[in-house]
Amino acid sequence: MDTIRILGLDPGLRRTGWGLVECRGNSLSFVAAGTVKAPLDGELAHRLVALHAGITEVVRSYAPDEAAVEQTFVNKDAGATLKLGHARGIALLVPAQAGLAVAEYAPNAVKKAIVGAGHAEKGQIRLMVRVLLPRAEFDTDDAADALAIAITHAHHRQSAPARLAALMR
Amino acid sequence: MDTIRILGLDPGLRRTGWGLVECRGNSLSFVAAGTVKAPLDGELAHRLVALHAGITEVVRSYAPDEAAVEQTFVNKDAGATLKLGHARGIALLVPAQAGLAVAEYAPNAVKKAIVGAGHAEKGQIRLMVRVLLPRAEFDTDDAADALAIAITHAHHRQSAPARLAALMR
Repeated sequence: MDTIRILGLDPGLRRTGWGLVECRGNSLSFVAAGTVKAPLDGELAHRLVALHAGITEVVRSYAPDEAAVEQTFVNKDAGATLKLGHARGIALLVPAQAGLAVAEYAPNAVKKAIVGAGHAEKGQIRLMVRVLLPRAEFDTDDAADALAIAITHAHHRQSAPARLAALMR
Repeated sequence: MDTIRILGLDPGLRRTGWGLVECRGNSLSFVAAGTVKAPLDGELAHRLVALHAGITEVVRSYAPDEAAVEQTFVNKDAGATLKLGHARGIALLVPAQAGLAVAEYAPNAVKKAIVGAGHAEKGQIRLMVRVLLPRAEFDTDDAADALAIAITHAHHRQSAPARLAALMR
């Protein structure tokens, strides 16, 4: 049975959380997690360069097989949404440049995969990440959220063949 | 007197316009313009890789000294704003990765620099681009808009020292 290493990313312009898990059949294990911090000031373009370099370093160091990125929450403030879009563009770009498939999951899909309900709170998700990955260590909420996205992808990629097998019976 | 080559970018997920002008004192000349077209389908992440590769090729081919990117119009559709943010993140990233300073101009600043009024229509801007750069050739409106952004940056970078000189009199 193959071991698949999954990179989850929770993008943000100031802090982008990243988390790596390995799945082998139904078993899931923690690999690493952390936060890429881009400088708070300076030209926006050069902050994005720092973000790109930080995520590239994670991909190089841990050589994931697949990646998953949260579909950033969009709100009524169009300027904030645009800025999130900048960071998310970089988070999608880096693993794709390394040749990985990059899945996207809406916040509700993440909640449903982790807690079992689409309306879970952030705190519940982080609690369940600790339950599902007892050895996990993470420095920020963003890193915990990135692990939740990686777990969500592990569930979806396992359930697709299982669903197919059920259909073919 | 130095000749400065400026790259203007009008970012979009499907089409990103680019335009290069050279300025030498008060004189402005056309270098090249075109459009980077990203594939319409496939994973968003891999469309962004195509956009990144296309803009990188322009920067390598024409070796600009400075870059300027339009501050994308944000509208009420948060999903569309987020997608524009993705493309704009890539457009800001590429010239910064090449070590260039990257200026940003709001649509109104572009209109004011080109037509002389902040409420000009897109058609008026394109007409003035033809007047200011008689030798310009461009394949799309996005390329014309990118030339307008490059011209705007040429005006601003010239006027800053002029304003300083006026203050010091």
